Order: sequence, then structure tokens, then C-alpha cells
Amino acid sequence: MPDSKTPVTVLGLGMMGTALASALLRAGHPVTVWNRSAARTGPLVAQGARPADSPADAVAASPLVVVCLLANDNVADVLDALGDRISGRTLVNLTNGTPAQARELAARAAEQGASYLDGGIMAVPQMIAGPHAYVLYSGDEKAYETHRDTLAVFGGTRWTGTDPGLAALYDLSLLTGMYGMVIGVMQAYALVRTEGIGAEDFSELLVPWVTAMLAGAPEWGRAVDSGRHLTDVSSMAVNHAAFPNFLATFRDQGVSGELFAPFQAILDRAMEQGHAADGLSRIADLLKLDHQNA
Amino acid sequence: MPDSKTPVTVLGLGMMGTALASALLRAGHPVTVWNRSAARTGPLVAQGARPADSPADAVAASPLVVVCLLANDNVADVLDALGDRISGRTLVNLTNGTPAQARELAARAAEQGASYLDGGIMAVPQMIAGPHAYVLYSGDEKAYETHRDTLAVFGGTRWTGTDPGLAALYDLSLLTGMYGMVIGVMQAYALVRTEGIGAEDFSELLVPWVTAMLAGAPEWGRAVDSGRHLTDVSSMAVNHAAFPNFLATFRDQGVSGELFAPFQAILDRAMEQGHAADGLSRIADLLKLDHQNA
Ligand SMILES: NC(=O)c1ccc[n+]([C@@H]2O[C@H](COP(=O)([O-])OP(=O)(O)OC[C@H]3O[C@@H](n4cnc5c(N)ncnc54)[C@H](OP(=O)(O)O)[C@@H]3O)[C@@H](O)[C@H]2O)c1
Ligand SMILES: NC(=O)c1ccc[n+]([C@@H]2O[C@H](COP(=O)([O-])OP(=O)(O)OC[C@H]3O[C@@H](n4cnc5c(N)ncnc54)[C@H](OP(=O)(O)O)[C@@H]3O)[C@@H](O)[C@H]2O)c1
Repeated sequence: MPDSKTPVTVLGLGMMGTALASALLRAGHPVTVWNRSAARTGPLVAQGARPADSPADAVAASPLVVVCLLANDNVADVLDALGDRISGRTLVNLTNGTPAQARELAARAAEQGASYLDGGIMAVPQMIAGPHAYVLYSGDEKAYETHRDTLAVFGGTRWTGTDPGLAALYDLSLLTGMYGMVIGVMQAYALVRTEGIGAEDFSELLVPWVTAMLAGAPEWGRAVDSGRHLTDVSSMAVNHAAFPNFLATFRDQGVSGELFAPFQAILDRAMEQGHAADGLSRIADLLKLDHQNA
Repeated sequence: MPDSKTPVTVLGLGMMGTALASALLRAGHPVTVWNRSAARTGPLVAQGARPADSPADAVAASPLVVVCLLANDNVADVLDALGDRISGRTLVNLTNGTPAQARELAARAAEQGASYLDGGIMAVPQMIAGPHAYVLYSGDEKAYETHRDTLAVFGGTRWTGTDPGLAALYDLSLLTGMYGMVIGVMQAYALVRTEGIGAEDFSELLVPWVTAMLAGAPEWGRAVDSGRHLTDVSSMAVNHAAFPNFLATFRDQGVSGELFAPFQAILDRAMEQGHAADGLSRIADLLKLDHQNA
């Protein structure tokens, strides 16, 4: 059955767009590609992709259009340039963005006659089409059902809802968790290096330790959901007593404490507000702005 | 062989001290306990511990003294009160503290005729004596060798060196990694809750995702050790372009961005200093204060 697979257009061939287009080619889809800097189409053309000179040329080739650019401003510009040439097609936007941006792009796409899906890629490019990658989707559910098998080429597919902003909300929340972890790892590496300890060597201790502590996340989640934060594990009072040791040691060792100073402030606030016997899960509540002003 | 096991004194029966004393009792050690608030000795006495009225009374019973108080100021006070009644014994300090504090307490203990070991407990109380708990030690290596089998009751033992400050350096570095993770998890929970998504439910996505991203830590460590941060995974430019989406969404959803504002500042600095093509591992270098001023 030649060409039984849905033709797909990929707009944007950065690290991620290239990984997406390459996975589609390997899965046997006819793939048309466009990138602002044309040079980046080379490797994909060698793998069988058809290069297009413009977004309009590119979208003409396929009912399914995947866009993955640096930011949603760039997506909006491309959508503007396309006008109603995107009409009748499905636009899947895998660019990082906010829920509000996703809703606005969905409205614009609708005006231009296109179905819109917003997506959040939970993978780095090297993971695409591998067993641990998945993509969160929200928006036009019919378009999702129509193209789900094709989208499954990238990895798992996870539907979050018809509000186009939901995939971004989940995506940003998961990435927030990742950024926190990155902040911790980078600060730890900076600190051990001051004593000549290799960061890669140290990762052998750090990864199992953070993994073990991360196992507490479901229990913290239960506490956050219920609003009951009392703990027999590690109290706010103990963390509050210990944290100045961290800031002092960053200072003593010549490492900037800028990424962790606000954590001290929030521990201070927890104590001031009478949460000494609560666990760290209390912090999620303290971050609610209405609660702070209450 | 009655009393073949080393008698141990435990000073401080908070959540952690209680777990330590209880593990020693279960392992068959004669255990003497003291706590500022005497009421806390009750459950341990029921398990066979001998309660002491004062630190001096308590340390008289054992060659090995484990202290686990809220902070090292409290340990210093106890040490002062003990004077030379601690002489000839080994003091193992498992209180959270800085390398500088550990060095100072080691010097004081030496003046009072005691051997000193500093330790960092890599476990929550519930993990003590379980398969994943371990304690980092530094200081008097002979004391460590003498008491290692007893200390192994708490979990694994890991020697970091004769500089008494080293265990604290490792401990604080590992805990820094944990605090970063906690910051990320709490911020993510606060964010999803604004859309009525349960934090515990969300942990089912969050834990595997952070775990998958944490697998990049050894590679980031190699980059930090080598100073070569170029990446084909996710560039500083992409993270810098995306991060305003996070701060905007925190704001839109009524979640404080205070814990993540400094991360934006450091991404900005990375771009200003020409590291757009580097990976996030560059951040560890940017945290070096001498580097910042360079
Ligand atoms: N890398 C990851 O691990 C990862 C993971 C999940 C999600 N994402 C998201 O995926 C998106 C792309 O990331 P990436 O890693 O592929 O980034 P990248 O390698 O830097 O690629 C950026 C892409 O955006 C294009 N672009 C930039 N400015 C443009 C403009 N003004 N008009 C048109 N095109 C423009 C670039 O075109 P040129 O080649 O012409 O510069 C390039 O195709 C981002 O939103 C990112 O947050 C990335
Ligand atoms: N909990 C954990 O997960 C964990 C993990 C690793 C390390 N640690 C470290 O272990 C240490 C103890 O933590 P914890 O969780 O057991 O704390 P905790 O439950 O709050 O217990 C604190 C202990 O310190 C005593 N104390 C406080 N102020 C004192 C003072 N001025 N003089 C004498 N004793 C005083 C308390 O006595 P009273 O009963 O009289 O108040 C109590 O025994 C801390 O340094 C902590 O960072 C804890």
C-alpha cells in the first residue's frame, strides 16, 4: 500500500523538529519540511524528506502540519503568513508556550479554517520515538482522534482535554519540576567542585539520593490535596534550622546562593505563619498568592 | 555472649535520634538515652533503653556517643556542659551542619580528650536501618574503624576523609540536590492545583518525568568537569526563550514565582555572556563567584 501513511509537514527543523521529522520518515510517512534557515533541511532530505521553499508550499503537501519553533511568537508569524492556505488542515503546535498562548493560537487557527492541537513534548530530541517519550495534547479532540496513530510515531500520546491550554499547563508543570531538579543538581555540582570533587563522580551519589527523596512526592501530593501537612519525617522547623547552613556553606565555598535565597525566605514565612510542625509539602500551599495575602 | 555489643549513648531523641536509638536497640546494643525534654525517652525505655538524667550521666555509660540535635549550636552547648567527662570516648555528631562547624567541634572535642566523627545521614528517620539508608563520615579515621560495625546498624557507612568538614560538604551537596527537587515539585503542585488537578494524581506523571531527566545528571557532570557545555539536547537559547512562559503562567494562575525568578536571571546572564549554544550544565559554572566577577 504505497502512501498509505498520512503525509506530514514539519515546520521548524531545530534539534526537536529534526528529531520529529526524522521519526516520521523512519515510520514511513511522506514528510515535507521547511525551516527558516534552509541549510537545516539537508540531513532530512538525505533521509527522504521533501524540502519546501516556504511555509505555504510546505503545508500544501499534507493534511497534518506539525510546527516546532523557538517560541509561539514565531508560530503566530508563520500562521499569519499562511492565511487561509492552512484551511482544512490540522495544525499541531509542539512549541513550548503558555496556556494563554495556546488558546489564542487555537482561536486564530479556527479563524483561518484549521483544526488546532496544542502539544507538550515530554522528551529531549534523543528520546523521540523511544519507549519513554510522550506528548501531551489538548484542543480539537476530533483532529486528535484522526491523527493519533501518526502522532504516536513520536512516542506515547496523552490527551489532557479540549481546552487548548491544558497541554501547556501540564507541560509547564512537569518542566517546572525538572527545572527545580536542575537547579539542585547545578548548585550541588558547583559546591562539590570547590573541594576538587568531580561532578560526574558525585552524580553516582546524587542521582540515587534525589531519586530516593523523589519517592516522597506522592505523599507530599496527598498532603497538598488534603491541606494536612503534619509530618513525622522532617519538619519545617528542622529544615528551617538547617537551611542557614546551606547558605553559609555556599558563601564559605565561593558559590553563589542566588538560586536558593528565596527558599530561605519561604521557610522563614512558614515558621512565621505557625507551620513549624508541618512537612515541606506546606510550601506548595504557601506559593498560592491568595493564601499569602490571606 | 551477653553485652558483646558496644554500649551506645544517644543524645537527642527527636524524630531522627529516636530512629537511631531504636535501630541500635533492635540490633542488640545496650543503649543509654538522653533528651532535653525527658518525656521523649518513654518509647525507647519501653524498648529497653536506659534513660539518663543529664548528658554527663548518659555519656558515662558508653564508649560511643551519638549526638543528633536540632543544630550544632546545641551540640556545642552539650559539649561545653560535658567538659572532660567526654574524655576517652568517641563522639559521633549526626546533626546537620557546615564543614566549618564540624571542624570547630572536632577541635573542641579533641581539647576535651574525645575522638570526633562528623556524619551526614542520607535518609529520613523511616529509612534508618533499611537498605537505602547510609551515613557519610569524616574526621578521626581510627575511631571510624573501631566503631564502623556499630555505625553500620544505621545503614551503609561511607568514609569521606580525615578533614572533619568533608562529610558535611557531601551531605549539604546531596541535600542541595534534594531541595532543588523539592522546589520543583512544590511549584509544580501549586500550579496544577490551580486547574483542579490533584497533586497526588499529578505525581504519577511528575515522578517518572523528573526521574527520566535526572538520568542526564552524569552527562551534565562530565560537562561541568570538562568545562565543555556545548549540547545537542536542549540549548541555553531554547531554555532562555521558554522560561518567560513559566513566569507568565505562574502569574496568570496566581502562583508565586519567587522560587524561580533567580533562574530567569541566571539564564539571562548565560545569554549575555555568550553561552546560547551551551546546555544547562553551564549553570554550575556560572554559580562560581570568582567566575561571575571575571
Ligand atoms: N530540545 C528539547 O529538549 C525540547 C524538548 C521539549 C520541547 N522543546 C521545545 O521545542 C521547541 C524547539 O526547540 P529546539 O530544541 O528544536 O530549538 P532549536 O534547536 O534552537 O530550534 C529552534 C527552531 O526555531 C526556529 N526559529 C527561531 N526563530 C524563528 C523565527 N523568528 N521564525 C521562524 N523560525 C524560527 C529555528 O530556525 P533557524 O534554524 O532558522 O534558526 C529552529 O528551527 C522549543 O519551543 C522548545 O522549548 C524542546
Ligand atoms: N528528620 C530527617 O529527615 C533528618 C534527616 C537527616 C538529618 N537530620 C538532622 O538530624 C537532626 C535532628 O533532626 P530531627 O528530625 O530529629 O529533629 P526534631 O525531631 O525536631 O528533634 C530535634 C532534637 O533536638 C533537640 N533540641 C532542640 N533544641 C535543643 C537545645 N537547645 N538543647 C538541647 N536539645 C535541643 C530536641 O529536643 P526536645 O525534644 O527537648 O525539643 C530534639 O531532641 C537535625 O540536625 C536534622 O537536620 C534529620
